[in-house]
Amino acid sequence: MTQGFRIDGCQYANWSEKIFRQMREGGLDAVHVTISYHENFRETVLNIEQWNRWFEQYSDLIFQGRFASDVKLARETNRTAIFFGFQNPSSIEDDIGLVEIVHTLGVRFMQLTYNNQSLLATGCYEPDDTGLTRMGKEVVKEMNRVGLVVDMSHSAERSTLEAIEHSDRPIVISHANPEFWFPALRNKSDKVLKALAESGGLLGCSLYPHHLKDKSNCTLQSFCEMIAKTAEMIGVDHIGIGSDLCQDQPDSIVEWMRVGRWTKSIDYGEGSASNPGFPDMPEWYKDNRDFPNLENGLRSVGFNQVEADKILGDNWLKFFDESFQPTP
Amino acid sequence: MTQGFRIDGCQYANWSEKIFRQMREGGLDAVHVTISYHENFRETVLNIEQWNRWFEQYSDLIFQGRFASDVKLARETNRTAIFFGFQNPSSIEDDIGLVEIVHTLGVRFMQLTYNNQSLLATGCYEPDDTGLTRMGKEVVKEMNRVGLVVDMSHSAERSTLEAIEHSDRPIVISHANPEFWFPALRNKSDKVLKALAESGGLLGCSLYPHHLKDKSNCTLQSFCEMIAKTAEMIGVDHIGIGSDLCQDQPDSIVEWMRVGRWTKSIDYGEGSASNPGFPDMPEWYKDNRDFPNLENGLRSVGFNQVEADKILGDNWLKFFDESFQPTP
Repeated sequence: MTQGFRIDGCQYANWSEKIFRQMREGGLDAVHVTISYHENFRETVLNIEQWNRWFEQYSDLIFQGRFASDVKLARETNRTAIFFGFQNPSSIEDDIGLVEIVHTLGVRFMQLTYNNQSLLATGCYEPDDTGLTRMGKEVVKEMNRVGLVVDMSHSAERSTLEAIEHSDRPIVISHANPEFWFPALRNKSDKVLKALAESGGLLGCSLYPHHLKDKSNCTLQSFCEMIAKTAEMIGVDHIGIGSDLCQDQPDSIVEWMRVGRWTKSIDYGEGSASNPGFPDMPEWYKDNRDFPNLENGLRSVGFNQVEADKILGDNWLKFFDESFQPTP
Repeated sequence: MTQGFRIDGCQYANWSEKIFRQMREGGLDAVHVTISYHENFRETVLNIEQWNRWFEQYSDLIFQGRFASDVKLARETNRTAIFFGFQNPSSIEDDIGLVEIVHTLGVRFMQLTYNNQSLLATGCYEPDDTGLTRMGKEVVKEMNRVGLVVDMSHSAERSTLEAIEHSDRPIVISHANPEFWFPALRNKSDKVLKALAESGGLLGCSLYPHHLKDKSNCTLQSFCEMIAKTAEMIGVDHIGIGSDLCQDQPDSIVEWMRVGRWTKSIDYGEGSASNPGFPDMPEWYKDNRDFPNLENGLRSVGFNQVEADKILGDNWLKFFDESFQPTP
């Protein structure tokens, strides 16, 4: 077995046996799954309970990943290791003690914000970005201590730069693309990407159509050329995949993601009144079975096999290895 | 190092640096501590957060024990491994999924009842004992699966016998004494003790004065003679210590233990209107520094060193080794 590891750095699907089987068909050794958007702690635990049920029920396909070694175990046992993450800090409520608790429960990534201001930092849809809050600085320090990775995918620019600066350990942007390729509000500036890479962090390139040039019509070649240009700018060692695959979700879920319980109105986020639902995925990336298409695309724009392997999982594996254990 | 391991199978002290230092002075390699009486899940997590703070603050004295190997690690590093337990199932609320969650958080013992009827079984102060409930049977099965030990210290007779019968893995009575020695409501009949031992279970002999013959005036010799007689009846391999030490607690705590939030009246439990508070501990067992007195007492009533070592910790260690991992 010489092929590199295959890891998807962010998904939020309507999980089912079908999808777990597709992960196997796509050759995924590990997937970072979102287990909370706006849930409070108790609701998050209910989501973990549901995952525990799936781990019991589909133990031949998936198991809970806790450390980098589990990715290797997954490869050896022909299964996919599932790593938990939050897209919002609502799960830790206003209680810094919950950082260690959720890490013990296996949570490995936490966004300091979703789109709005949180108790910790500013989201990318706020008009004013005030950076890390007082609690935000304390929580980043605690996340560093226990081995919970800071994820700034949905955060605003200043907050992101301050998180990179303030964190003693490398952070991630698990699912977003460079602004230079497609200037979506959720995509990231050269300044952010360079600071991220200089601090040892990782960018997970997103396949969510609202982050793609030409959206649902984006071509595999354009996507892979974007990765090549990004690699020129920040180095191939700082790039992975975070597909943001939201497979089989009803449109009520994208509304939950955007609106949660913070407003009684509708907020369309990256969508619009005329296009409020989940966008169609590109033809070449419909589900986990299409992960191997990325390898072909990367090779065809000039990456060698080692480089392609890095982008498709080996960089994530190295990052997992250096990030999930408590600081000694 | 030939001395056996030293383990206390139940304490609920007003924890402090002083007490952690006394654990070291008393040579305790491990202590099973109660972290919840009537707390719901979120409140229990707050108690774990407090323990995490202590583990950080006093890392030279204590750390969280999760498996039997941690008792050996404690011995090697001159610290005491702290294992969590519940004296009531209130922490899992009405949600069987929380059994695995609390096990992941390191909880290793759960009483199916405190003194009252619970969702799972009947407590020893109820007038009618209806045995395991429907949910009780399901929860015992789930506890068996994940490696959370059933503890029936405060449960009524039929419920206890049914738990022994229904459980696929050995259970414990972590802190109580034989009724033949002192007929307190909390002490256990010969029938229960024999069934417990026959199924591979363990009795932790209690030093709480309400469970002792002559209460606070009980002598070390009387206590150790009781252990000798119990060993004759059920075998020395099924006996440990569960001191029930409630050191430095204000009397408001024993009221909380008895009353929780289930009544607006006062319930005196094992106490009385004229004696509502914590009873005085016997002179020879005031705190953890007195644990070595038990070794002297056991040797003087005729136990050899191997037998004394079994009672003082080696039996608990073997039990931990066989009980805390999930069923394969």
